[in-house]
Amino acid sequence: MKAVVKAVPGPGAQLCEVEVPRPGPGEVLIKVTAASICGTDYHIYRWDPWSAGRVRVPLVLGHEFCGEVVELGPGVETVSVGDYVSAESHVVCGTCYQCRTGQSHVCQNTKILGVDRDGCFAEYVVIPAANAWRNSRTLPPEVASMQEPLGNAVHTALSFPVVGRVVAVVGCGPIGLCAVAIARAAGAARVLAAEVNPYRQDLALRMGAHRVIDPRREDLTEALREETEGLGVDVLMEMSGYPDAIRAGLRGTRSGGQVALLGLPSAPFEMDLSNEVVMRGLTVQGVTGRKMWETWYQMRALLDSGVLDVTPVITHRLPLEEFQLAMELMARGECGKVVLYPGGVPS
Amino acid sequence: MKAVVKAVPGPGAQLCEVEVPRPGPGEVLIKVTAASICGTDYHIYRWDPWSAGRVRVPLVLGHEFCGEVVELGPGVETVSVGDYVSAESHVVCGTCYQCRTGQSHVCQNTKILGVDRDGCFAEYVVIPAANAWRNSRTLPPEVASMQEPLGNAVHTALSFPVVGRVVAVVGCGPIGLCAVAIARAAGAARVLAAEVNPYRQDLALRMGAHRVIDPRREDLTEALREETEGLGVDVLMEMSGYPDAIRAGLRGTRSGGQVALLGLPSAPFEMDLSNEVVMRGLTVQGVTGRKMWETWYQMRALLDSGVLDVTPVITHRLPLEEFQLAMELMARGECGKVVLYPGGVPS
Amino acid sequence: MKAVVKAVPGPGAQLCEVEVPRPGPGEVLIKVTAASICGTDYHIYRWDPWSAGRVRVPLVLGHEFCGEVVELGPGVETVSVGDYVSAESHVVCGTCYQCRTGQSHVCQNTKILGVDRDGCFAEYVVIPAANAWRNSRTLPPEVASMQEPLGNAVHTALSFPVVGRVVAVVGCGPIGLCAVAIARAAGAARVLAAEVNPYRQDLALRMGAHRVIDPRREDLTEALREETEGLGVDVLMEMSGYPDAIRAGLRGTRSGGQVALLGLPSAPFEMDLSNEVVMRGLTVQGVTGRKMWETWYQMRALLDSGVLDVTPVITHRLPLEEFQLAMELMARGECGKVVLYPGGVPS
Amino acid sequence: MKAVVKAVPGPGAQLCEVEVPRPGPGEVLIKVTAASICGTDYHIYRWDPWSAGRVRVPLVLGHEFCGEVVELGPGVETVSVGDYVSAESHVVCGTCYQCRTGQSHVCQNTKILGVDRDGCFAEYVVIPAANAWRNSRTLPPEVASMQEPLGNAVHTALSFPVVGRVVAVVGCGPIGLCAVAIARAAGAARVLAAEVNPYRQDLALRMGAHRVIDPRREDLTEALREETEGLGVDVLMEMSGYPDAIRAGLRGTRSGGQVALLGLPSAPFEMDLSNEVVMRGLTVQGVTGRKMWETWYQMRALLDSGVLDVTPVITHRLPLEEFQLAMELMARGECGKVVLYPGGVPS
Repeated sequence: MKAVVKAVPGPGAQLCEVEVPRPGPGEVLIKVTAASICGTDYHIYRWDPWSAGRVRVPLVLGHEFCGEVVELGPGVETVSVGDYVSAESHVVCGTCYQCRTGQSHVCQNTKILGVDRDGCFAEYVVIPAANAWRNSRTLPPEVASMQEPLGNAVHTALSFPVVGRVVAVVGCGPIGLCAVAIARAAGAARVLAAEVNPYRQDLALRMGAHRVIDPRREDLTEALREETEGLGVDVLMEMSGYPDAIRAGLRGTRSGGQVALLGLPSAPFEMDLSNEVVMRGLTVQGVTGRKMWETWYQMRALLDSGVLDVTPVITHRLPLEEFQLAMELMARGECGKVVLYPGGVPS
Repeated sequence: MKAVVKAVPGPGAQLCEVEVPRPGPGEVLIKVTAASICGTDYHIYRWDPWSAGRVRVPLVLGHEFCGEVVELGPGVETVSVGDYVSAESHVVCGTCYQCRTGQSHVCQNTKILGVDRDGCFAEYVVIPAANAWRNSRTLPPEVASMQEPLGNAVHTALSFPVVGRVVAVVGCGPIGLCAVAIARAAGAARVLAAEVNPYRQDLALRMGAHRVIDPRREDLTEALREETEGLGVDVLMEMSGYPDAIRAGLRGTRSGGQVALLGLPSAPFEMDLSNEVVMRGLTVQGVTGRKMWETWYQMRALLDSGVLDVTPVITHRLPLEEFQLAMELMARGECGKVVLYPGGVPS
Repeated sequence: MKAVVKAVPGPGAQLCEVEVPRPGPGEVLIKVTAASICGTDYHIYRWDPWSAGRVRVPLVLGHEFCGEVVELGPGVETVSVGDYVSAESHVVCGTCYQCRTGQSHVCQNTKILGVDRDGCFAEYVVIPAANAWRNSRTLPPEVASMQEPLGNAVHTALSFPVVGRVVAVVGCGPIGLCAVAIARAAGAARVLAAEVNPYRQDLALRMGAHRVIDPRREDLTEALREETEGLGVDVLMEMSGYPDAIRAGLRGTRSGGQVALLGLPSAPFEMDLSNEVVMRGLTVQGVTGRKMWETWYQMRALLDSGVLDVTPVITHRLPLEEFQLAMELMARGECGKVVLYPGGVPS
Repeated sequence: MKAVVKAVPGPGAQLCEVEVPRPGPGEVLIKVTAASICGTDYHIYRWDPWSAGRVRVPLVLGHEFCGEVVELGPGVETVSVGDYVSAESHVVCGTCYQCRTGQSHVCQNTKILGVDRDGCFAEYVVIPAANAWRNSRTLPPEVASMQEPLGNAVHTALSFPVVGRVVAVVGCGPIGLCAVAIARAAGAARVLAAEVNPYRQDLALRMGAHRVIDPRREDLTEALREETEGLGVDVLMEMSGYPDAIRAGLRGTRSGGQVALLGLPSAPFEMDLSNEVVMRGLTVQGVTGRKMWETWYQMRALLDSGVLDVTPVITHRLPLEEFQLAMELMARGECGKVVLYPGGVPS
């Protein structure tokens, strides 16, 4: 089969012919309909320090996808051949304290598809049956594929109540863009997006942001306060990982407000914890992954009911063969979500 | 001034000329722009057993209104002459345990406007300055007036998260109708309304209910389960106070689901607590009044942002003089919210 | 092996010789060290209407126990031969909405040991490996056995914060007695127990109740108010299932207070929902089973740390052969927890 | 009267004779029975950069005290002459968003006794009647005095459930010492204290810490993990404000754990937010002041019931005249809470 493979340590990846994998006990083989690209894929592609420290080659990249179950490994009972599924990308142990108490999104032994085991930028992928999520038949494949990052956004955006509140979404990559739409769907009184990239600023408006702030042109803290009669926003969703944005966002959140942090700073940085967090009584929630499976049920309900529409986030559809072009789009930031089709782009 | 007065114990009330009241220390005099009618007003009008046991005559009726502050009593600093205000109808003590710990909506010493002291079906009304809520200038008076019952709906509907969940609103009087709209605004995946009155069934659809169930024609429990693949709804908002509806609603709520009870049954009734609540692990929240002042801030944000539109609930506008007609409309249930104008209906 | 069997529908049970069961796939065989008796066992023994409607004979009774794993069925990986385990008695499906979102204690497809499948009043019992909980080696067998009901108490008592609050525990069977001790361990300012049986009144004091109220001799509501300067208790734990006690307890809870309901009324009864719950803004939580596995981890921590000591609840130790005597003790209520030993009472 | 006055900007303070202050409208005059010293007093005494930027001289120092109400200003109704009171040191506006929604501990307009207006290191002090808290007559004055910092500890320690959990208290000044005792009282399975000062290490053990870790001699993160089978503690209470301790504490908290931050770092410092907070899904709560008035009610219940005993924290009792000695004790850290008596130390 065709697969995008990182064959040697270092930048780049190639489209190769590899063996179709076989499902072991408790696993299923899935024919990939659509796969989408995450910033993490791009980091591995470029071979940044984090990737160099974690990834073992050879590796098939990719962890966002949907497809059809075509073969069951021994002992699989919860999924059937023919099921239309997406995947939770975190393969968790099921036995640690966190897994046994409803916090498997912070499982101590998480393995990630396309990072720690072969991923989905291929015609076929094998995943544990426990990671397969059955989609509604009516869900378009490109949306089904992007449920993994959408789930990050759902997890983040629903960490705190937003109905009737002023929300800031800092960083409008695909997850931030989804968070804008979720906050609107959930009844936020006002959604303020912060983003430096003009392409994504436009997308943020299309997703429903009431205002987009460019932190390179405006003081973010001041803009957030100006929108709230000096008070600061009720809820901050931090999706950028940029130190300046994090600090400015915290200072633009009202005393007693709530902060969900999803963005990952690439290195330690200085924080004024006393003035930015402690004395202002903020509640800060670190967010990673998706709650299993509450986030997935919430996402299904939002999508199937039509309450949430994330299709504007999907800006590019390419055949799998053009993954190099996709990586260039990622590099320039001139994209929302880029979807790859191993079987060719549907017309 | 003109005022609707219950002069003697027993059914009925009259439009009388009475003295304009004077604001005492900490009180304000308000010129009433619009006042709206609540089921409680109708109960007092009819002189039901509850009214007969609580109300002391003579009494000016009414507790939902908005108007303009025209005079300040001694010591008032938080409100100014000319302010456009609505009123929290619960006059609370401020010193009991509940008042001092953020639960003044269940103050042990609550007095209610139009029940325990003179109300607002009049040209002027005196209230404690602490009960005045400054409205945005752009808020239409009929909406400003109905914020008291809308606040009940906000308090109830936001008792539990509804985003991406299936919600049942049982009982579609004005408060239930508002709850339907709030649940939609807050991103409920599906809002199921239950109501027997055809007039209000139509209003429920206009407020955004996905489906209206008539418990006289359909089994309510079955209908709720049918809409949820047998699971039951996630959140029940009980606004009817009818024993059969309460029981059916509880049985139609999923195990582990959440129930907000606002409707007031008029008498004790049989409940199967084991099967309806305990063994199914329900969370049941009794709701009364409005959180001071969180509910009011939420309401302001929802209304001013345009996230919530409750104008379809307002079905009748009458001069104060026609309050008898208003009571007849209430008797027949052929109305949503009825608004009275002491100064005449604006054209 | 010896086993206490309900062989025919109707009152009673016999000690029989039956085949040692074999563990199927995913199951384990456990040699029972100690087993304890629950009110449910007694209901099945007496063959009350609930039992007659649910239980299919023949059935080995009993669902509280600990023992040693002696054989693994195919595919078991999470438990080893020689493990010292207790059992979660609820065999849940793992696939329903509740199981997949952290609410498996209200699984839609729960089967219960000793009710829906053979139980533990025997020398050996087979359970799903997923239901086995590994105990600390230092935990005494009689305490290990009673973790199932203790878990009910932990689940109930920790439903709401109790530190620095006044708590009422209504009904002092073994679960209520444990709840008294847990409330004390968790820092309740005052624990008020209500119980009619003098034997259990004494036990309640031994478990740490500050005061025991006999609802047959005192007005329970008045007593709860008297202890709280008229306010009512902060938290009510209802373990009795008696209608009068439930009503009195609710009325003795302060406005805005919290209620955990575990007791199961045997039939529907009249409640004054308006005055007992709605207008007073109570939060009522139905409690059933144990949170899997949060409750078990909490219980382990409380027991292993010595924060909680429930040994006074264990009043009788009998060989399995004397189960008829045990049932008589249950009938008279002159016991706390009665423990049976298939291998004889340890000296 | 005698008062400890900072008369000129710069280090030091003097005992002076000043006019007895008069209570204005809404204020009360209190004869000080006991006053205790906070780190903040010492910072102002030394005139650190924060003090130099905020404090205006002349100023009577001190904000922790208890005493007897001796005179009421105009309009005071909630307090009586003769009342035995302590004071909430935060004078809040009552009208900002936070004050009106139950978050007055983060009021936007807070003024602090002994910082922004004259304080209590004097024979008499004037405070707003709204800041007076009536004590039980049986509460010893030195405990009544220290309720202000004890309230910080109660607020912090009850930010998250601790019953049956492993808790780390980092930093054992008087507030941390109180937090140790509160965590024990609230049923923590294990309380691990971290402190570098040997005098305070001993106090931590006396307050109930199961183990005291000296971060100068042991790796704090490793010690916390070692105590939890590698998992990390469930709840971290950060009372030190030291960057190294904060980082080590965060890394020693389990994924999905909870962190209450009270300590105030004196300057910005580097944090590895990705690894310390975000990817591990921590919940971090900034804590300041005391919840008005929930914290005070909790504190009263804990003290009056005997559930909490903080008397070991009180290590020194001095006449007001010896405040210079008290400041020296603070400088050396060889003290818990130091109490000053304007009327002389009781025998």
